[in-house]
Amino acid sequence: MAITAAHTARAPRIRLGMVGGGRGAFIGAVHRIASRIDDQYELVAGAFSSDPDRSAASAADLGVSRSYGSFAEMAQKEARRKDGIEAVAIVTPNHMHAPVALEFLKRGIHVICDKPLTATLPEAKKLAKAAEASGVVFALTHNYTGYPMIRQAKAMVQAGDLGEIRLVQVEYAQDWLAHEVDNKQADWRTDPARSGAGGSTGDIGTHAFNLANFVSGLTLTELAADLQSFVPGRRVDDNAHVLLRYNSGARGMLWCSQVAAGQENGLRLRIYGTKAGIEWEQENPNYLWVTPIGAPRYRLTRGGAGSGEAAARVTRIPPGHPEGYLEGFANIYAEAGRAIIARRDGSALDAAVSFPGLKEGLEGVAFVDACVRSSAKNGAWTKLAL
Amino acid sequence: MAITAAHTARAPRIRLGMVGGGRGAFIGAVHRIASRIDDQYELVAGAFSSDPDRSAASAADLGVSRSYGSFAEMAQKEARRKDGIEAVAIVTPNHMHAPVALEFLKRGIHVICDKPLTATLPEAKKLAKAAEASGVVFALTHNYTGYPMIRQAKAMVQAGDLGEIRLVQVEYAQDWLAHEVDNKQADWRTDPARSGAGGSTGDIGTHAFNLANFVSGLTLTELAADLQSFVPGRRVDDNAHVLLRYNSGARGMLWCSQVAAGQENGLRLRIYGTKAGIEWEQENPNYLWVTPIGAPRYRLTRGGAGSGEAAARVTRIPPGHPEGYLEGFANIYAEAGRAIIARRDGSALDAAVSFPGLKEGLEGVAFVDACVRSSAKNGAWTKLAL
Amino acid sequence: MAITAAHTARAPRIRLGMVGGGRGAFIGAVHRIASRIDDQYELVAGAFSSDPDRSAASAADLGVSRSYGSFAEMAQKEARRKDGIEAVAIVTPNHMHAPVALEFLKRGIHVICDKPLTATLPEAKKLAKAAEASGVVFALTHNYTGYPMIRQAKAMVQAGDLGEIRLVQVEYAQDWLAHEVDNKQADWRTDPARSGAGGSTGDIGTHAFNLANFVSGLTLTELAADLQSFVPGRRVDDNAHVLLRYNSGARGMLWCSQVAAGQENGLRLRIYGTKAGIEWEQENPNYLWVTPIGAPRYRLTRGGAGSGEAAARVTRIPPGHPEGYLEGFANIYAEAGRAIIARRDGSALDAAVSFPGLKEGLEGVAFVDACVRSSAKNGAWTKLAL
Amino acid sequence: MAITAAHTARAPRIRLGMVGGGRGAFIGAVHRIASRIDDQYELVAGAFSSDPDRSAASAADLGVSRSYGSFAEMAQKEARRKDGIEAVAIVTPNHMHAPVALEFLKRGIHVICDKPLTATLPEAKKLAKAAEASGVVFALTHNYTGYPMIRQAKAMVQAGDLGEIRLVQVEYAQDWLAHEVDNKQADWRTDPARSGAGGSTGDIGTHAFNLANFVSGLTLTELAADLQSFVPGRRVDDNAHVLLRYNSGARGMLWCSQVAAGQENGLRLRIYGTKAGIEWEQENPNYLWVTPIGAPRYRLTRGGAGSGEAAARVTRIPPGHPEGYLEGFANIYAEAGRAIIARRDGSALDAAVSFPGLKEGLEGVAFVDACVRSSAKNGAWTKLAL
Repeated sequence: MAITAAHTARAPRIRLGMVGGGRGAFIGAVHRIASRIDDQYELVAGAFSSDPDRSAASAADLGVSRSYGSFAEMAQKEARRKDGIEAVAIVTPNHMHAPVALEFLKRGIHVICDKPLTATLPEAKKLAKAAEASGVVFALTHNYTGYPMIRQAKAMVQAGDLGEIRLVQVEYAQDWLAHEVDNKQADWRTDPARSGAGGSTGDIGTHAFNLANFVSGLTLTELAADLQSFVPGRRVDDNAHVLLRYNSGARGMLWCSQVAAGQENGLRLRIYGTKAGIEWEQENPNYLWVTPIGAPRYRLTRGGAGSGEAAARVTRIPPGHPEGYLEGFANIYAEAGRAIIARRDGSALDAAVSFPGLKEGLEGVAFVDACVRSSAKNGAWTKLAL
Repeated sequence: MAITAAHTARAPRIRLGMVGGGRGAFIGAVHRIASRIDDQYELVAGAFSSDPDRSAASAADLGVSRSYGSFAEMAQKEARRKDGIEAVAIVTPNHMHAPVALEFLKRGIHVICDKPLTATLPEAKKLAKAAEASGVVFALTHNYTGYPMIRQAKAMVQAGDLGEIRLVQVEYAQDWLAHEVDNKQADWRTDPARSGAGGSTGDIGTHAFNLANFVSGLTLTELAADLQSFVPGRRVDDNAHVLLRYNSGARGMLWCSQVAAGQENGLRLRIYGTKAGIEWEQENPNYLWVTPIGAPRYRLTRGGAGSGEAAARVTRIPPGHPEGYLEGFANIYAEAGRAIIARRDGSALDAAVSFPGLKEGLEGVAFVDACVRSSAKNGAWTKLAL
Repeated sequence: MAITAAHTARAPRIRLGMVGGGRGAFIGAVHRIASRIDDQYELVAGAFSSDPDRSAASAADLGVSRSYGSFAEMAQKEARRKDGIEAVAIVTPNHMHAPVALEFLKRGIHVICDKPLTATLPEAKKLAKAAEASGVVFALTHNYTGYPMIRQAKAMVQAGDLGEIRLVQVEYAQDWLAHEVDNKQADWRTDPARSGAGGSTGDIGTHAFNLANFVSGLTLTELAADLQSFVPGRRVDDNAHVLLRYNSGARGMLWCSQVAAGQENGLRLRIYGTKAGIEWEQENPNYLWVTPIGAPRYRLTRGGAGSGEAAARVTRIPPGHPEGYLEGFANIYAEAGRAIIARRDGSALDAAVSFPGLKEGLEGVAFVDACVRSSAKNGAWTKLAL
Repeated sequence: MAITAAHTARAPRIRLGMVGGGRGAFIGAVHRIASRIDDQYELVAGAFSSDPDRSAASAADLGVSRSYGSFAEMAQKEARRKDGIEAVAIVTPNHMHAPVALEFLKRGIHVICDKPLTATLPEAKKLAKAAEASGVVFALTHNYTGYPMIRQAKAMVQAGDLGEIRLVQVEYAQDWLAHEVDNKQADWRTDPARSGAGGSTGDIGTHAFNLANFVSGLTLTELAADLQSFVPGRRVDDNAHVLLRYNSGARGMLWCSQVAAGQENGLRLRIYGTKAGIEWEQENPNYLWVTPIGAPRYRLTRGGAGSGEAAARVTRIPPGHPEGYLEGFANIYAEAGRAIIARRDGSALDAAVSFPGLKEGLEGVAFVDACVRSSAKNGAWTKLAL
């Protein structure tokens, strides 16, 4: 029941900037709330829009004093200030992740980047190389890995509670693109120039893929994908059926869809091993079901009996008091923050700290790339081009 | 709330024989209960075992007066009696379905046969041809299509409530073969000589496939299958991942498994169209979830508000009083019984009567055959050899 | 997974008569199906209506050869036949239970009577006395105690798995009388002359009360009731709130309602002890939730891992294959049938056999009586007048 | 999908102080997170403990610059500063609510006070009078009324969607005091001198009572309570069964328990009217079930189709992205913040703004008082002494 997050606030707050996330944006606001929940960050600068006036208006809305008309200007000027930002949150459409990130990391500014890493695989490789060379902390907000019960699931897999993993069933179903949609969120996500070659695969398939990797600890060897664009005129996939083969011999299926009628944000993971399985659904994330062979199915709750340290260290409130999406997202910020502060202080980072970064980002973009290539070859088994 | 089933009992009960289903059998007992629930049948003869003594012992257990040591003897002798059986229930392992059925149908005795139709596709084609020529009623107990809410789902699809179907997600997960098992039920199901080339695909995959076809009304064009035998030494598949392409352009995924830890009888169907989706789970079969685009998800209950005639005609008790597996199974018997009585009386059969038969049986065996062939070609898209 | 019920059929079927249950009746049809499921009974005679023509018409519908125009005639004539009925099922409105039962039991014919035992407490006491004196088997169809997971729950309480019981929360919510209703089912249930002084308390409150007693093993000491008739002009209660005090010091609440909007047949039992709790819902009766203190909540399934012998002996099919209301009801028939056959054979009755009878019937009527008296005294604590 | 909360941040942040909530406290940390989520408050001062050293240590933990050794000192000194606190959060044990609040409100400092309002009814009346006289904003953190779907439920009741309300079923079940517990949280809650005469009734019963009032809009006329202390030696109730009679003729039941085995934070509200019912559970707060008479049950989701403006104005993220306890709590802070800023600016307060305050506080303490008095008179119907 401990509320431990506040303790880390004793270090001075991390000075944060943001690129993107102006008026009408969704994910920018999520990043800002996530950065506040544990009082670890302070948002002090932003290039909230590529239009300087709109950027300034958003800054005023948010009570942020330093507003910039371009990310390049922001990178240059902040890097020169003594009290300049220590980290930047990148919440632009996909095709802008790489250019923006490169501008900041080359100046030693840590990066917290929305997923997927980039719109294309060559870009991703280039960015990963540059980021590694720079030595900055690079966090990618595959936020679902921040949920405590996902941490619990991973810990159980690692402890061998499931036995040897045989099967991974993961899906992410939405319906918001079931028909022609015309708004800011939809427009760039269905434009290959901005989203990349993958539509649903890039936007949500990468989350599903990442989540399965995170919990299972497995590495995907090859996949066979059948991609569809159900909505006439759509230029990217809005539904994908993918068969999975992992290095260990485990097999799986991944389904992602933005046209599954009546689905809101149906991310669901099921993993079955030789001893037991686990089942988790994002829409009710405080529960983890465990399904042993030969014993009754049971429900672990966030912080409740049987839930261990891996979950406890990223939870804030007692069992029965549900945490949600924002807290899970905040956990990515908190974990990245621990790394940033360790870097600032020159202190050792707690080995338990975990957040997605360049490796996961590269894998995600390679996953989309492989899906698109496999589907173009009528579902031929295709290896990730890592 | 009407209890209408009893009305059909006014016709004299159908004289039923059984082949297989002796002591220790599972599905034979299910067939017997199913045949009794609506008081339409009377079990009067049986070749419950190929061992005459065991057959007689089972007959005594069951209070059945006419016991035979072989199905051939039973077919011959019953055909000669004035009060001989009108129908035979075949509840043997798969490889015996065809030889037994042929013996009865050539004598004009109606057949109620457990699924799959046969162990091999050539056998299935031969049997289907002979059965059609004979003119007997041939029912195949794909019992899950007997559930009222499955009838409701089909009626909703037909009425256009879902719009144009885009996606079919169907799965059937069990864990009873997760490890080496040694019992009567497991032995023949993992022996290709008795079960056919498919393991989980034949035993439960055919159910899933049939259920999706029944509700969606779609025809499968081709499939791509990745079959596994996770348990060392197993000679048939115990898990299968299958991608589906339907004639209409709809796509789908089918997963069947007998090694999914902690799963009992997890048959689950989800279908999504341009307007709405439906979701159904066999383990709680009295509910059908409807998931419209742009309106709240709602729950239809068997006999409850919003549930229509297609469900009502195969239900016995008011909403909130759950019906289960045996009642669903009994609905196949009741529907086949209506056809048998119509044949006996020379009367017209109510157009609403529906039960799986030769067409569904052929498709099921062709499905298994295509899965095995596709998997052997590393998941190449493969057409059903119908 | 054993299908054992059929074995008892080796004894000749019990010859059964029925009083009530003619065309349009609900519960009569349920009794008939329940009597058939395990092939233990044969319905051979009936006074299905007090109108001889209607009785004969129902008999013809049902294929029952011996039809009577009155229960008295039936009792007399059947008692004289060598092949006369051995047991009678009474499925009339409440006020007729006692007169009918007395007529049969005084002739040594076993009685299977719908609940509640009678419409009034004096009648109940008289009937109980007469029935005990007669020595017949007397079963009362508090059918919910026939559900396997209710047997499992009782066994767990008896084994001490819950520790000392502290709390009983039981409810039974429907909405079918939420407004003025005019049909055969509603008419007699809202007429005190036929239903007795209790409305919802008699019709469903007695089920809830009985279920709680059965599982908990506790005896109610006193209750405080607040009864309402929400529908204008209704002459009996359609909703009741009842506080419970048990002999052991345990406390509880009982809610029954026929005006709870949107509820179908919401019978739900929760019992909490010093070590663990159990939770069960009739609308999905194959699951029993166990809620230990200090360990995760788990789900027992009918026949699944962790479910014991008490449930197994009243189940027919494997876990994951849902059983429902009719199978639960059939278990009361099966248990009573075991007692009837033991009586017929002079054999000892298996100690595990359990079905509700006179004691439970008396308690139920006393419960209704105490509710009505307490409510009339503005909810004063009131003892059962047993 | 709008993220609107941030817009209110354009006003300068509200300077907040805190009394209580030092190291090891639970609810203080919750208040702090809640105050941060929408960026409306800045915590600048605290009397986190009555021990000055402990207070200072907590302030250092939290990065709060102004630390005080007593609430009285803090009230005096802050009131004198130009940049002194505008509002104080009181998160002490119950008996300290009144003395602390009085000290601040008499200096015109707004109060955000944890529930229940006070430990005794006379105190509550005195505090309410003084607070009203002072004119400050007084918010009481009955946080569950901050959940969006609770706002939705209230709006539906007000719109008449349920018809006339007949029934209220509310419960709040936990098990953390099922046995003797010895920790800071448990100690004061089971000490009548600090918690007041009610145990579970005060700690959680008041939440349940408040929630039912908030959604139903009804006023309780009288109650009949049966209170228990199941754990030997416990000086306050740990379980309560309460019958409810509302002014409109509606009736209800309230159950609160801290000894219900296996329950974490089981607050559950069900309200049934002449047209429909609603059902909500705190542990999965993003769903509201609506149960009409004569139509299928449906599920409203936070922000999803059919969910209206009342919910939308207190939600931050799209449907399918779960919000939890902290966001609900933050909504109370956000609503109170709107009132505080309106007061600061002299602007009109949006009529939609709603948060619990003195009226709800008084009712809650009167509820506990009536429960204790009724139970002492063996459950006699007792009016609230308002």
